[in-house]
Amino acid sequence: MLPVFGHLNPDTDAIASALVYARLLTRQGTPARAYRLGDLNFETPFVLREAGIEVPEVLPQLEAGSPVALVDHNESAQSVSNLADLTVTHVVDHHKLGDLTTVAPAYLRFEAVGCTGTLLWKLHREANVSVEPVDARLMLSAILSDTLHFRSPTTTQEDRDAVAFLAPVAGIGDVETYALAMFAAKSDLGDTPAEQLLKMDYKVFPFGDPAQRWGLGVIETTNPAYVFGRQGELLAAMQAAKSQDGLDGVLLSVVDILNETNRTLVPGDVEAAVVQAAFGVDTRDSVADLGERISRKKQIVPTLEKHFAPQH
Amino acid sequence: MLPVFGHLNPDTDAIASALVYARLLTRQGTPARAYRLGDLNFETPFVLREAGIEVPEVLPQLEAGSPVALVDHNESAQSVSNLADLTVTHVVDHHKLGDLTTVAPAYLRFEAVGCTGTLLWKLHREANVSVEPVDARLMLSAILSDTLHFRSPTTTQEDRDAVAFLAPVAGIGDVETYALAMFAAKSDLGDTPAEQLLKMDYKVFPFGDPAQRWGLGVIETTNPAYVFGRQGELLAAMQAAKSQDGLDGVLLSVVDILNETNRTLVPGDVEAAVVQAAFGVDTRDSVADLGERISRKKQIVPTLEKHFAPQH
Repeated sequence: MLPVFGHLNPDTDAIASALVYARLLTRQGTPARAYRLGDLNFETPFVLREAGIEVPEVLPQLEAGSPVALVDHNESAQSVSNLADLTVTHVVDHHKLGDLTTVAPAYLRFEAVGCTGTLLWKLHREANVSVEPVDARLMLSAILSDTLHFRSPTTTQEDRDAVAFLAPVAGIGDVETYALAMFAAKSDLGDTPAEQLLKMDYKVFPFGDPAQRWGLGVIETTNPAYVFGRQGELLAAMQAAKSQDGLDGVLLSVVDILNETNRTLVPGDVEAAVVQAAFGVDTRDSVADLGERISRKKQIVPTLEKHFAPQH
Repeated sequence: MLPVFGHLNPDTDAIASALVYARLLTRQGTPARAYRLGDLNFETPFVLREAGIEVPEVLPQLEAGSPVALVDHNESAQSVSNLADLTVTHVVDHHKLGDLTTVAPAYLRFEAVGCTGTLLWKLHREANVSVEPVDARLMLSAILSDTLHFRSPTTTQEDRDAVAFLAPVAGIGDVETYALAMFAAKSDLGDTPAEQLLKMDYKVFPFGDPAQRWGLGVIETTNPAYVFGRQGELLAAMQAAKSQDGLDGVLLSVVDILNETNRTLVPGDVEAAVVQAAFGVDTRDSVADLGERISRKKQIVPTLEKHFAPQH
C-alpha cells in the first residue's frame, strides 16, 4: 500500500487530498492509503464528519527506500523528517517547487491553482474516472478552505469550475452556507493553548543563501477579536518557538476571512525590521497591518523571498 | 513570447518537444517560441526536413528574471548556463527531478514515460485540442527516437498508444520504415570530428555527495563498426573533455540500435574501476560490454547513482 500524505500541521487540503488521491490511485491500479503528519485543525474534523469519513492515521515510521506519494507539499521542511531517505514516486501539489529531487522518473503534477483538490478533480476528468460523492465533498471542502471560498488571490477559474462541478455531485445545494459552517468550525478555537494555535497552520521556510529559517503561521478566522484577545500569550508562544526551533524569525498572520484583511503578530525587533523592509509596513504594539495580503503562498512568502534573495 | 527549449546537445525529443509545446502553449493563450541549446545531431535534420519545419534558432541571452519553459530536461547542468537567474514557469519532462526549484507555483508535468512527446500528446488530449499533422509527426518522431522504436526499456504502453494514435494523423502509413530511415540518418556520421561525436548526445551528471561530475555520452547507431573504427580518436576526445571540463569521469556508450546492445568506451583506469564496481563488468582494450543496458536514463545513470550514493 503506497502511503499518501500532505504536509506537517495538516490543513483541510492536506488531509482531504491525501484521502482522495489514495482512493484515485487505488482505483487506477496502485493500492494506496492516506495518512496524516500531525494533529488536525478545527475545520477538518467538521469536514470529515460531514463526509462520514474516519480521520486518517498518523504516518508510521517508514523504512529507507519506501515509496511514498506526496500531496499539497514538496519541501522537506514541510514533510516527514526522513523524506530524503524515501522514494518519492508521486507528487500532486500547487506550491512552488523546493528542494525535492527524485531518484528515478516520477509522476509529478504541479499547477498554479488555488488548491490541490482542484488538481485531483482534473486528474479524475483526464482519466475519465467518475467522481464519487464522498470524494466530491472532500475536494470541494479543500477548495473552499484553501481559497477562503474564492476570496484568496490564489483563486483561479479552475477552482471555481471545480466547485461548480463538484457541488451537485456532493449533494451540496448551497455552497455559501456550507463554506460559512466550515469557517465557523475553524474559528471555534475555545481554550486551545496558544502554542497549538500558532502551530495549527504553520510552515518553516528557508530564505536566502546562506538560508535563514523563518516560521510563518496563519490563523484564518471569522472572529479575529478572539485571537487578538490572546495576543500576549501568542507572542510568548512565538518567542518560545523561535528559540526552541532555532529559527531566525517567526510571524503569525491573523486573517479575517470575511473582511479579507491580514494583521500580523510581530514578536521582536528582528521581525519588525524585516516586515518594514520587505512590506514597507511599520509595527505598532507588536502588530503589523498587512492589509489585503491574505495569502501566505502568493503574497507573504514571495515578498520575503525577494527580500532575502542575494542581489544579482 | 515565452521561450521554450530542451536540453544542451539536443536530440530529436529536445527539439521536437520544444516546437510542439510552443505551438500548444500559443494555441492555449500563452504566446511561445521554440529555441535550441546547441547543434543538432544527424537525426533531427531528417525529421525536420520530412516535417517541412525550419530549425529553431539558438536561444539568445535572456535577462535575469525572464520566464522560460523547459522541455525534456530539468537539471541545471543540462540547461542554459544562467537557468538559476531565470523564472521557470513550465516544465514538461520524463526524467528524474534534479536541482530545479521555482520561485512561484509553476506548471510542472513529469511522468515516467519513454518520451516527452508522449506527454505532449496527452496534454493535447486532456485539453481537447486537436493534433495538427505536423505536430503529430514531430511527437511521433521524438517517441520513435527516444524509445529506439520501442526497443528501449524506458518504453511504456502510453508511448505505444501515442504512436498508434499519431501515425495516421501524421500521414505515416509504415512506422517501421520511417523509423529505420530516421536511424539510418542518425548513423550517417560521415567525417564528423570525434569531439563532436562524443558531445552529440552527452550529459553531465552529478553523482554522490560531495558530488563527482561525470560526462556520459551515447551514440545510438545502426552501424557500430563505423564508430569502433574511430575508437582511438574518440578515446582521445574523451580524455580531452575530461580535463577541459574538470570532470571526474567520462564514458561513451555505443548502442547498437538493431541488436539492442551497448559496448561502452572507457578512457582510463578511474572509469574502468567504477564500471567494474558498479556494473560488475571488466574493461578490455578500453571497451566494457554492458550487454543489454541500452538506456542511459533507466540503466546507466541509476546504477552509477547507487554506486556513488552515501551509505545509510
